[in-house]
Amino acid sequence: MTRLVASASGNGAPGSSHTAPPAADALVDEFRRQAGAAAQGAAGERLKDYQHPVGVEEFRRMGYRVVDWVCDYYAGLGARPVRTDVKPGFLAGQLPPRAPESPESFEAVLSDIETRIMPGVTHWQHPSFFAWFPANASFPALLADLIGGALGMVGFSWASSPISTELEMAMLDWMAELCGLPASFRCNGGAGPGGGVIQGTASEAVVVAWLAARARAMRGRPPGDRLKLVAYGSDQAHSCYQKACRIVGIDHVRVLPASEAHDWALQPEALRAAMEEDVKAGLIPCFLQVSIGTTSSCAVDPVGGLAAVANEYGVWTHVDAAYAGSAALLPEAREHFGGLEAVQSYAFNPHKWLLTNFDCCCMWVADSGPLKEALSLTPVFLQGVGNALDYKDWQIPLGRRFRSLKLYFVLRMYGAEGLRSFLRHHTALAGAFAAALAADPRFELAAPQRFGLVCFRLRGASRQQSEALLAELNASGARFLIHTELGGRHTLRLAVGAAGTQLEHVAAAWAAVREAADRVLGEAGAGVEGPGAGGGQAVGAGKAGGAAQ
Amino acid sequence: MTRLVASASGNGAPGSSHTAPPAADALVDEFRRQAGAAAQGAAGERLKDYQHPVGVEEFRRMGYRVVDWVCDYYAGLGARPVRTDVKPGFLAGQLPPRAPESPESFEAVLSDIETRIMPGVTHWQHPSFFAWFPANASFPALLADLIGGALGMVGFSWASSPISTELEMAMLDWMAELCGLPASFRCNGGAGPGGGVIQGTASEAVVVAWLAARARAMRGRPPGDRLKLVAYGSDQAHSCYQKACRIVGIDHVRVLPASEAHDWALQPEALRAAMEEDVKAGLIPCFLQVSIGTTSSCAVDPVGGLAAVANEYGVWTHVDAAYAGSAALLPEAREHFGGLEAVQSYAFNPHKWLLTNFDCCCMWVADSGPLKEALSLTPVFLQGVGNALDYKDWQIPLGRRFRSLKLYFVLRMYGAEGLRSFLRHHTALAGAFAAALAADPRFELAAPQRFGLVCFRLRGASRQQSEALLAELNASGARFLIHTELGGRHTLRLAVGAAGTQLEHVAAAWAAVREAADRVLGEAGAGVEGPGAGGGQAVGAGKAGGAAQ
Repeated sequence: MTRLVASASGNGAPGSSHTAPPAADALVDEFRRQAGAAAQGAAGERLKDYQHPVGVEEFRRMGYRVVDWVCDYYAGLGARPVRTDVKPGFLAGQLPPRAPESPESFEAVLSDIETRIMPGVTHWQHPSFFAWFPANASFPALLADLIGGALGMVGFSWASSPISTELEMAMLDWMAELCGLPASFRCNGGAGPGGGVIQGTASEAVVVAWLAARARAMRGRPPGDRLKLVAYGSDQAHSCYQKACRIVGIDHVRVLPASEAHDWALQPEALRAAMEEDVKAGLIPCFLQVSIGTTSSCAVDPVGGLAAVANEYGVWTHVDAAYAGSAALLPEAREHFGGLEAVQSYAFNPHKWLLTNFDCCCMWVADSGPLKEALSLTPVFLQGVGNALDYKDWQIPLGRRFRSLKLYFVLRMYGAEGLRSFLRHHTALAGAFAAALAADPRFELAAPQRFGLVCFRLRGASRQQSEALLAELNASGARFLIHTELGGRHTLRLAVGAAGTQLEHVAAAWAAVREAADRVLGEAGAGVEGPGAGGGQAVGAGKAGGAAQ
Repeated sequence: MTRLVASASGNGAPGSSHTAPPAADALVDEFRRQAGAAAQGAAGERLKDYQHPVGVEEFRRMGYRVVDWVCDYYAGLGARPVRTDVKPGFLAGQLPPRAPESPESFEAVLSDIETRIMPGVTHWQHPSFFAWFPANASFPALLADLIGGALGMVGFSWASSPISTELEMAMLDWMAELCGLPASFRCNGGAGPGGGVIQGTASEAVVVAWLAARARAMRGRPPGDRLKLVAYGSDQAHSCYQKACRIVGIDHVRVLPASEAHDWALQPEALRAAMEEDVKAGLIPCFLQVSIGTTSSCAVDPVGGLAAVANEYGVWTHVDAAYAGSAALLPEAREHFGGLEAVQSYAFNPHKWLLTNFDCCCMWVADSGPLKEALSLTPVFLQGVGNALDYKDWQIPLGRRFRSLKLYFVLRMYGAEGLRSFLRHHTALAGAFAAALAADPRFELAAPQRFGLVCFRLRGASRQQSEALLAELNASGARFLIHTELGGRHTLRLAVGAAGTQLEHVAAAWAAVREAADRVLGEAGAGVEGPGAGGGQAVGAGKAGGAAQ
């Protein structure tokens, strides 16, 4: 059909040296001639090839070395302290004030990893990392990420690199089926109205859900009504709830109290009362954030009951199951996920507890219409490729990485049963830890153990004693826990979920908890104030362990 | 100080099989005893170790294989078509409808890459990828990404993993120095008031800048004033300008016309007139987006002149140099970057033209106060670690990857001089292409050639002929260009910038342009409508090449 000459000769690799074949040489000569003086450049010889410092064969050698580094890292990970005690500014003195002028060797850069980088690393993949929630890395996801990085495509629209959209739709459908999500969330090849998308984080999913909710609520209303929109969530909802309200620009943000009596779950009656009151005041209920697995205690809001109230008021319900959503793969945990057919959007993070390296947040909507209404800027005359989704219209950024490949590798190389076993493993370890606590009269559970999380404290202890217990536990660096506040009380959290956490690590944590309690309670003669080293570390844990995460 | 037993014995690797030492065995026995029935689980034997399907040694083998795959991919990249002609839905029939129940082998997954994935890939790293702007991958960045992925830490705050914040501050300072940015943008170890941060994309940087601008403008004002805020940008600004305004919820969005007479740059007089008018109407000018290197034609707005007007009106100026910002490394291109000392924020994407795999957008602010005012939710009593930055307060998401490591590897392994040579190489190739065009009377430049971008068209040709030229150029798949609209005229864009693009690829593109023109202009006897295969592809290019990107 055409006889355009393919420039197929060149070795396209960054850094590869290559020799152009004679046909290409002729084209180059012709190009030089036509370009005239511009082919010379100011320095007289600019128009030549660029030689990258790392070519294909160098990369092969370096790539092997880095793979070995990763293997060594994981093989020795359990022997490292989870955290070190660096202070702000520790790195500055170790780096030159500016980038080097000339290339440095790979060997120099790699060897500096241990001396410059590792001292400041909190080892989130450490088997005794029990802080926040896990952020699982896995080898299949790492392999996929390397391939995705090499492809280096930017799949903002179907047309920009079709596989990016196609695989993402397929993986979101696979995941929806594994989690038993409502059929309305399926992509159906982009035919809608519902579908799934990978966001970076659960925080972004909330903002996107909010924007869709606002677009839906504002249909046919004057702009000034934006000032009347109301958001609803519990005081146990993740801080991303309030952050999203700020970003979207919402003045009326209801933070409804959840109580210990209901295991820190938001109650439909409280929601109804708040909405009723707001409507009477002339406000417009718009957005509800429901949590399955709160950060503090893995509380589970009653999705169905809350969504029923929300739907009565025309409110968009978004369900944030950032951490706990992985557990939907387990039939025995499905009881926590009932009612999703009544909500407008749902999100969870396979990058937390499902072995898919950060970032990977799966989000589904039952109707993508309001979402595209909020975020699509493609002129109508350019909407051309059949039913294809353009994911740029489902997110805040334009560009996007090939994140679905991580899910594809993880789902295939673990298989559904492998993932369920993984989740059951941690759930059982957390259950055993909770049972051990319950059998020791010095401790109490601060909330029902759910999924991989155990919230506990010393029975009848002072805040000072509770803080001392945490400081003791973290002082050695052998493990890392953080605290939260539940009902105004200092509470320790043990989140089992790091990919490498095995029975022995939880058993050792239990032993450490007992020993620390011995000292804090004075039974072993140690002072309540604990070792000095613990103080500084407790700041860090406390800082991020409270409302901030 | 303490005698907590470190559980340092275990091999922490996901998938590693390991044998617990005797001390750990004793702890495990004690734990089992204390946990009682919970140590059994429903199935009677849950409390055992979990075996990942891929252990350390399996990963070593697989990692080598994937490194080899990457090498093969780059070695053969130039011989692949840049795009294929798949249709929406092509993947669905090739994938099972659900995830496998049992693990599949690495070999099966890897071999499927070629059969299932590659047919839908647009090869953004192809040396003859001239579409949109480049999205550079490089081997040093890939190596860093693998290490960062293995570390798998989530650096939302300084305390969550100190190196994440420390290295990011250092790399943003390095980059600011390389680009000759104002001293007010330096992090100063977090002491403020200014500093840099890595965002995912330039789109997110605009939203964040907007939020800071709004927070600053709304100080002491009633909430209703939010409805009066006005945004300013040119009709050449990236679509992320209008998208950000929608996200933030801005009703008054000025899209000021830029004209060919000023090379598509926004003029300060037009800005002043618009602001004056808005103030008279009782509105509140708030945010200005200035572009250095627009998507359509690499137009450069006069930063200093525009910011001077904006500052008179108390307006926040954000400069978007997403693509062209890399050129600030070149002293000879600095003329385009004057005036930055007068603006409030600035961003560019090393993931475009600076060899740092997507995503990596460097953003700087002169005063982080309004930004934290907009985005920080940490209660005061938790603000504890000295002058440390918590980057969660500088962005929309909470979590964040260790992206600074990519910059660290790229800056060290290329060196400043290596990066400058790379940028000069592409600039010279684009200059030569422009010169060749200028020397052929059939063509005209549609805008001055800047950086790596050449905008051109057939002189005096119809839209149909111009579209046919593009279709001809893309039909073979040997290269990929897109079009834009400039002053209502269909215009072709050749963006030189893929990491592997060498002289021969641009020379071949020039030969292809000449041949295609021969056919379109009838000199070679071919019909204007061109080959059928080109039609479908042109939809994709046009779709994403217009207002959408």
